[in-house]
Amino acid sequence: MGANFKSDNAAGVSPPILAALAAAGAGDGVAYGEDAWTKRLEGRMAALFEREVAVFPVTTGTAANALALAAIAPPYGAIYVHAHSHANTDECGAPEFYTGGAKLVAVAGAHGKLDPTELKRHLAVAPRGVHWNPRAAVSISQASEAGTIWRADDVAAIAEIARAHGLRLHMDGARFANAVAATGASPAALTWRAGVDVLSFGATKNGAFAAEAVVMFDPALAEAIGYRRKRGGHLLSKSRLIAAQLEAYLADDLWLRQARHANAQAARLAKGLAARPGAARVHPVEANMLFLALPDRAVSGLTEDGFLFYRWPDEAGRSVIRLVTSFETEPAMVDGFLASLDRHL
Amino acid sequence: MGANFKSDNAAGVSPPILAALAAAGAGDGVAYGEDAWTKRLEGRMAALFEREVAVFPVTTGTAANALALAAIAPPYGAIYVHAHSHANTDECGAPEFYTGGAKLVAVAGAHGKLDPTELKRHLAVAPRGVHWNPRAAVSISQASEAGTIWRADDVAAIAEIARAHGLRLHMDGARFANAVAATGASPAALTWRAGVDVLSFGATKNGAFAAEAVVMFDPALAEAIGYRRKRGGHLLSKSRLIAAQLEAYLADDLWLRQARHANAQAARLAKGLAARPGAARVHPVEANMLFLALPDRAVSGLTEDGFLFYRWPDEAGRSVIRLVTSFETEPAMVDGFLASLDRHL
Amino acid sequence: MGANFKSDNAAGVSPPILAALAAAGAGDGVAYGEDAWTKRLEGRMAALFEREVAVFPVTTGTAANALALAAIAPPYGAIYVHAHSHANTDECGAPEFYTGGAKLVAVAGAHGKLDPTELKRHLAVAPRGVHWNPRAAVSISQASEAGTIWRADDVAAIAEIARAHGLRLHMDGARFANAVAATGASPAALTWRAGVDVLSFGATKNGAFAAEAVVMFDPALAEAIGYRRKRGGHLLSKSRLIAAQLEAYLADDLWLRQARHANAQAARLAKGLAARPGAARVHPVEANMLFLALPDRAVSGLTEDGFLFYRWPDEAGRSVIRLVTSFETEPAMVDGFLASLDRHL
Amino acid sequence: MGANFKSDNAAGVSPPILAALAAAGAGDGVAYGEDAWTKRLEGRMAALFEREVAVFPVTTGTAANALALAAIAPPYGAIYVHAHSHANTDECGAPEFYTGGAKLVAVAGAHGKLDPTELKRHLAVAPRGVHWNPRAAVSISQASEAGTIWRADDVAAIAEIARAHGLRLHMDGARFANAVAATGASPAALTWRAGVDVLSFGATKNGAFAAEAVVMFDPALAEAIGYRRKRGGHLLSKSRLIAAQLEAYLADDLWLRQARHANAQAARLAKGLAARPGAARVHPVEANMLFLALPDRAVSGLTEDGFLFYRWPDEAGRSVIRLVTSFETEPAMVDGFLASLDRHL
Repeated sequence: MGANFKSDNAAGVSPPILAALAAAGAGDGVAYGEDAWTKRLEGRMAALFEREVAVFPVTTGTAANALALAAIAPPYGAIYVHAHSHANTDECGAPEFYTGGAKLVAVAGAHGKLDPTELKRHLAVAPRGVHWNPRAAVSISQASEAGTIWRADDVAAIAEIARAHGLRLHMDGARFANAVAATGASPAALTWRAGVDVLSFGATKNGAFAAEAVVMFDPALAEAIGYRRKRGGHLLSKSRLIAAQLEAYLADDLWLRQARHANAQAARLAKGLAARPGAARVHPVEANMLFLALPDRAVSGLTEDGFLFYRWPDEAGRSVIRLVTSFETEPAMVDGFLASLDRHL
Repeated sequence: MGANFKSDNAAGVSPPILAALAAAGAGDGVAYGEDAWTKRLEGRMAALFEREVAVFPVTTGTAANALALAAIAPPYGAIYVHAHSHANTDECGAPEFYTGGAKLVAVAGAHGKLDPTELKRHLAVAPRGVHWNPRAAVSISQASEAGTIWRADDVAAIAEIARAHGLRLHMDGARFANAVAATGASPAALTWRAGVDVLSFGATKNGAFAAEAVVMFDPALAEAIGYRRKRGGHLLSKSRLIAAQLEAYLADDLWLRQARHANAQAARLAKGLAARPGAARVHPVEANMLFLALPDRAVSGLTEDGFLFYRWPDEAGRSVIRLVTSFETEPAMVDGFLASLDRHL
Repeated sequence: MGANFKSDNAAGVSPPILAALAAAGAGDGVAYGEDAWTKRLEGRMAALFEREVAVFPVTTGTAANALALAAIAPPYGAIYVHAHSHANTDECGAPEFYTGGAKLVAVAGAHGKLDPTELKRHLAVAPRGVHWNPRAAVSISQASEAGTIWRADDVAAIAEIARAHGLRLHMDGARFANAVAATGASPAALTWRAGVDVLSFGATKNGAFAAEAVVMFDPALAEAIGYRRKRGGHLLSKSRLIAAQLEAYLADDLWLRQARHANAQAARLAKGLAARPGAARVHPVEANMLFLALPDRAVSGLTEDGFLFYRWPDEAGRSVIRLVTSFETEPAMVDGFLASLDRHL
Repeated sequence: MGANFKSDNAAGVSPPILAALAAAGAGDGVAYGEDAWTKRLEGRMAALFEREVAVFPVTTGTAANALALAAIAPPYGAIYVHAHSHANTDECGAPEFYTGGAKLVAVAGAHGKLDPTELKRHLAVAPRGVHWNPRAAVSISQASEAGTIWRADDVAAIAEIARAHGLRLHMDGARFANAVAATGASPAALTWRAGVDVLSFGATKNGAFAAEAVVMFDPALAEAIGYRRKRGGHLLSKSRLIAAQLEAYLADDLWLRQARHANAQAARLAKGLAARPGAARVHPVEANMLFLALPDRAVSGLTEDGFLFYRWPDEAGRSVIRLVTSFETEPAMVDGFLASLDRHL
């Protein structure tokens, strides 16, 4: 009994991706991204996004985010992010490191989403000459740290404000697949058509081993990333390690099938919880994450029954846990969780 | 016909390492280095080096070098390196980036090895107060960019100078396995026993997919690396990707067997060339690299016959090519090269 | 009529300081801080603070703050500051630049003073391993941006929390003289005896032309500042420019006499305002700054009468103005302001 | 007897500049560069350079150089400098700090001047993709560290190479006045007309207290400097401190009169030495510096007679001293030096 709901990044690696790794590793390849896998990737990404793109594969989302932000914000710039965003709270200052010291400005917003009205309020304050960091960029997370989704209209609302103030827009797409699966919108619709300049395209949380990519929709911004990636130590000599994963990830809609599965398990959980009034959902369940306020005895009981999850800070002081489903989560795990909950609520 | 002598990092991945990757990816694991593979690694490295060590796995040698140097040099420090070292010429300023702007001082030395007398000459100049970067570290490459090896005594000679001036000593061990195989010395003898403070332990050039590690022999210096690695985007959520490779690499002496094989093929090449006076070896052949001055027609002929290699800058203006052997190089490839050379010399 | 209450840094330079500049400039001097003026300064500061100190004169408070913070926080560290502190809002990211990307964490607090309870709340959250910036330092402003003063007990309360969590304590003393004058406490009592590790000692806002100093109470922390100052471009060849100002500033208690005068004019203003119910003081008047909520017509009227001041953002949406007195403010200016106010209230 | 030939930056401050400081300090002024002095400066510099310029006054040459280089080179760029240039050897890594880690590439050249042929040789090597820092800028020093001068044609020769390779050209004009005085060329002819993009305009070594300025000839490059200067801590609140010095410096050709005087004293020294075969000039004497190879007994004797100068490293192992004349050097000091030399040669 028991199951692991700690994180989608604690899951295993999807078999087709492991197979692709084995195949790519078996033979030799030109080093530093001149191999066939990496060269094919740009074309595949262009097809996926229905336009020319510049693609920079890396092994971590932190690297993708930091490189993307360094491409759109100068060392002295201000970058507007949600207070609880990964870039602001989970990367040990990677954006500050890669940008050379830009200032992350925390913007409020319900359920993990940077609030357009709050962003406007920040930007309505008159610029302060050279005394404060000039505004450079906005970064939003898809899905958000609260598991909520940016629909195309939501993105466009932020993009419009950003454009009106001359700011670039970055999307941290660590769970981009879950968002595409949840909305049914095209990758293009959720990104550049809505005003995104650069995307961190994540795969690791959805079945890859270590595969992310900076996807630039503005070629002029791409120029520097190649140098920054190398200098950051993120250009692999056997670059096909990443490209082969991403190729398998995109082939036959594996990425969407896996994301749909993960989302469906979260929905199954949410549905089960709706019938249990003792377990309060903290945020809407829109992708593959679920935040639950529970009595302490329920938290203890679930833990004793072998369920793994993170406890989460809660401003209202409740006992909140986070459950994350993945491509590996089985319905029986969900049902087992609900059954355990019934015993302890 | 033809064979690829471009680089050991253009080779494939060793089958036991691919198998380890498949096994590690098949199941789930705790994220961010708390998995069983990564936890086992420190013990294995401690056994290998016959002492306690702190180990920070990363995916590239550039990252390992830059993190190691950031641990031993302040932003305003001077780091002494060979003029042609990888850190100085092939990392697009990664050491400067990770240290926050330290100054790499190029020191001369024959055959790719930083010359102790030259180092002493640099250090004999009186420090210039705050006007010039205070001396912080020395970095040497094992094997060097010219394919030569640092024996334990060579390392000790540099370490003694470094210690006398209060400098830390880093070894870029991108081809550490080839050096251990070539010298027969123990990993301990070639590193901390000879005075090395921190080692970039390379595996990618010797059959891994993307696996290196910063190995710290001074625990006090390790403190900051964890934060720097995270902030550099080099802490993988599925860290077992690297640890599993390194575990398979070290198991059953795979690393040494592969390095011995690569070295043996370079020796076979060197032996064959010794009998061909038209082909002049530029540097001693001590590991798995060979630099050859050839008539232009021979370079063209070899290329036409399908042999791949890099042309190398030569201060004397000769046509020099670099040949690198790997764990995959077969004797027949070497013999084919020599036969082709005979036709074109 | 009219008078300038915009800022104490828009004032003139005190005559004894101008005289010292003329004297110091008249003859030659050894360059880069080896001159007699600079050499005397450390002794004078040691006497002032009743202990050995390391002193690094610079020309701006921004430089002093950024150098001080770089001495106590690593590039990946977190620095706790008041949300409205100068370091956080008025230095265009100088702390991030000099530290190499440290994260400033905004802590709330009434009347510009970082609240000990809020600081404790931040520090009560369990550290997050390498995922978030490790805690390094706290910085408080004397006087605060709201014109309030840190008494020795206030400083000690913060210092105790800082020490309990292994954090260093910095004081931005841009208006340190006003605080010493206001409290009557000794410079030692307000700083190191209360737990301050490093002080930005300001003089520019109190009659100097451009003279500040980083004063280090922990010699171990001083080591790096000399290099950082040089590399920041803040080591003047004719360093006596700064040292001569500071020497005149400290001689014959000029600094305290001037600060007492400025404070007295602010008190005179405050007293006058107490009798005028239409003008609400936003913060307690403890040093030489006064924040006043006024009807819009009064703000316009005062402006028309030639009074200069800044308008200040107010969270409650009122029309707030900031008045700053200096060593040059004359009682007649204060009385003129009150008279003008009477006409327009 | 005896005289100080150590450095022009160890000299005093010119009386008209001290007078201007006294006048500017006497009254109040708008802070942060909005004062009348600073506002007038841009116009005066525009007149001087016969074109629109953007001017950023700072207090040190190190700051001017580092800000200028940060404006024309990205963090990953390569900057070509003379091996012995101030930026490379005397600023403790300020260019690396302000650019965020750019790489200074040392180029050889006789008598302190970067050699165009050597520069071409560096640039003739094919770029190495992302593996090495892309070329961004060239920096030359006027006068050079060896006291030699760049005539307009010399500058143009470098500028042409720079332009052909897409590099920007910076001139470190710490002794720009001496070069203008020596050549008789106009400031425009020696800078932008010859291809300079940005100039560090020095005054401190020629009688100012602490006054330099970044002068940008390309307005597009100026945009970022304001922010970088603030964030570097180099925007003085009482900015008129610098502007008033520069105004007096330029008024009535004070700068040229002083530079001509200093140059004339160096020429007087050189002429005297030409008649003394025991004293070998190491570099041509073109501005206000003179390098002299002497018998050790002469060096000792001069020192005993009270003459101050620096000993200088010499690659040929001779005893070399550096003599620098300034606006304060009197003919009698020169003659005294020659007389002392006669006694000890």
